[in-house]
Amino acid sequence: MKIAVDAMGGDDAPEVVVQGALEAASKFGIHVILVGHEALLTGFVGARTRDSLVSIHHCEDAVAMDESPLKALRKKKDSSIRVAFGLVKEGVADAVISAGNSGATLAAGVLALGRIPGVERPAIASIVPTEKGPVILIDAGANVDCRPGQLFQFGVMAHAFGCSCLDMDDPEIALLNIGEEGSKGNELVRYAYDLFEKSTLNFAGNIEGRDLLTGDIKIVVCDGFVGNVALKLTEGTAESMARLMKRELMRSFLGRMAFMLGRKAFSRFARELSYEEYGGAPLLGINGIGIICHGGSSAKAIGNAVNMAAQYAQNQTVIKMSQGLKSYNLEQGL
Amino acid sequence: MKIAVDAMGGDDAPEVVVQGALEAASKFGIHVILVGHEALLTGFVGARTRDSLVSIHHCEDAVAMDESPLKALRKKKDSSIRVAFGLVKEGVADAVISAGNSGATLAAGVLALGRIPGVERPAIASIVPTEKGPVILIDAGANVDCRPGQLFQFGVMAHAFGCSCLDMDDPEIALLNIGEEGSKGNELVRYAYDLFEKSTLNFAGNIEGRDLLTGDIKIVVCDGFVGNVALKLTEGTAESMARLMKRELMRSFLGRMAFMLGRKAFSRFARELSYEEYGGAPLLGINGIGIICHGGSSAKAIGNAVNMAAQYAQNQTVIKMSQGLKSYNLEQGL
Repeated sequence: MKIAVDAMGGDDAPEVVVQGALEAASKFGIHVILVGHEALLTGFVGARTRDSLVSIHHCEDAVAMDESPLKALRKKKDSSIRVAFGLVKEGVADAVISAGNSGATLAAGVLALGRIPGVERPAIASIVPTEKGPVILIDAGANVDCRPGQLFQFGVMAHAFGCSCLDMDDPEIALLNIGEEGSKGNELVRYAYDLFEKSTLNFAGNIEGRDLLTGDIKIVVCDGFVGNVALKLTEGTAESMARLMKRELMRSFLGRMAFMLGRKAFSRFARELSYEEYGGAPLLGINGIGIICHGGSSAKAIGNAVNMAAQYAQNQTVIKMSQGLKSYNLEQGL
Repeated sequence: MKIAVDAMGGDDAPEVVVQGALEAASKFGIHVILVGHEALLTGFVGARTRDSLVSIHHCEDAVAMDESPLKALRKKKDSSIRVAFGLVKEGVADAVISAGNSGATLAAGVLALGRIPGVERPAIASIVPTEKGPVILIDAGANVDCRPGQLFQFGVMAHAFGCSCLDMDDPEIALLNIGEEGSKGNELVRYAYDLFEKSTLNFAGNIEGRDLLTGDIKIVVCDGFVGNVALKLTEGTAESMARLMKRELMRSFLGRMAFMLGRKAFSRFARELSYEEYGGAPLLGINGIGIICHGGSSAKAIGNAVNMAAQYAQNQTVIKMSQGLKSYNLEQGL
């Protein structure tokens, strides 16, 4: 098992990315291939260059966080993200993880590996930590304008991924909507509802925004516009709340005492809501494995993403997804 | 100034709604007309029936929270929400507030009062409390499928409302999107971006989900599907966080101490994030005044919504909105 790590992608790349990859090698025994500028990376890898689980694959270029993905990929043929997916295509690596430009990661993945047969559009599956374990929100931003059949496929792919990589057991799937009744919502969601309902998938109907984080439904489907707004809003709400809470506590002596005493609980709490646990969002629907990490990923998050990628490969998730898609596409006449 | 209160609408109607209306009469000196079943309401109003600021307008029927709005309105001609808007139409009342079925409130408002000339679609403007004061999120759920020109009008209406009723001074307007660049987003938002950009409105471009609650931008525009999901998600995130935080604190002795000591700060904090402060979401674009309250509104929220409705009427906000729309529609050739 070898995981290609885009060492040049991310707000704190390459330092933090390299550190996370090295941790994954030590902790999980996974072979990591650091893709990036060799001279630069060697400095960060240090003595670990002699570690048989760590190798460096040199490339000249990198896509910046704010570059236009397609233009950048066309221009920079030797960029770390293109080269990383190239290694998967050649069979040298089993998966790619990147904390870089997510549009470029998506595009490079499709370009190098193509789509699983029958998939209209690959999507980003974000893994949201909740009180009752992980919830998959799909699509988290790859497709801003969708058709109903695409939402249906997102559900099928997330179901296969959840069973194969997150220990889910035939999880329920719901559409993110503005009301629970099947007649609610915009045109896209109403048509998608019909597709899900007439399928043999474990469809639970619609859920509203407030139910996303309860964790009762494990797979939540929406278009990439809604999903991206929703995820960033969740992050923003949590941050605003934490800021406000601290400010309120600091205003009084008793509050400051409370903050000191509760520090451990507060930090356990922050950890529970942290995306670090899963490390990244798998790109479902490409004919191979790509994991998109948060631009500001910590080393721990990178390490966990490497581990998730390895599990993804080990469990033959892509093959399972492909089989699931074939049978549900047949069922729906898609 | 007389405000018609739909006394039969809301999870805890009529009791809590009547209580809130009576509080508004005492606290703000506003005349409230309680619309609902007289015998029932008289019981809750008690001695205050002799208060010159409190009157009861009898009607036989009420629309239930889960009824189909249009069917219910057609069938129930003597329902409290229809009768309440009828009072505005006849010039007996200046505005309506309702914590009942929000679809029915919207439909009854349009039916009785029509739209402001030039408005394609009325929208719900939710007032979101943030660290830096109120933010208007429009549309919060009235229109699940929108055209770009409609989003533009939502911005114009919210701008007029914010200046007239929330003491905003030429507030900046932004589109809720998945990235800041003008090229980002789905088709709807990209076209709306162009309309805003070529207008003379104070347009700040796009903001992402995480920036909604910072309060830096005072008016945030999106379609009603995205807006509704966003609002409910914000509520859900805040509730999940509060639950998790309490659970974490209760797990240890020091945590329990912290919780006891910080109780006051925690409740100040909850108050700050509470929707009660503004009480309701104005329905912008109908040719008159309607305020939609949360189904589970407290008496305090109802009282504040009555006060907002009175200000709305006093400040001639509808006339200002109508003038604003005329000039911006001309500018855009809409």
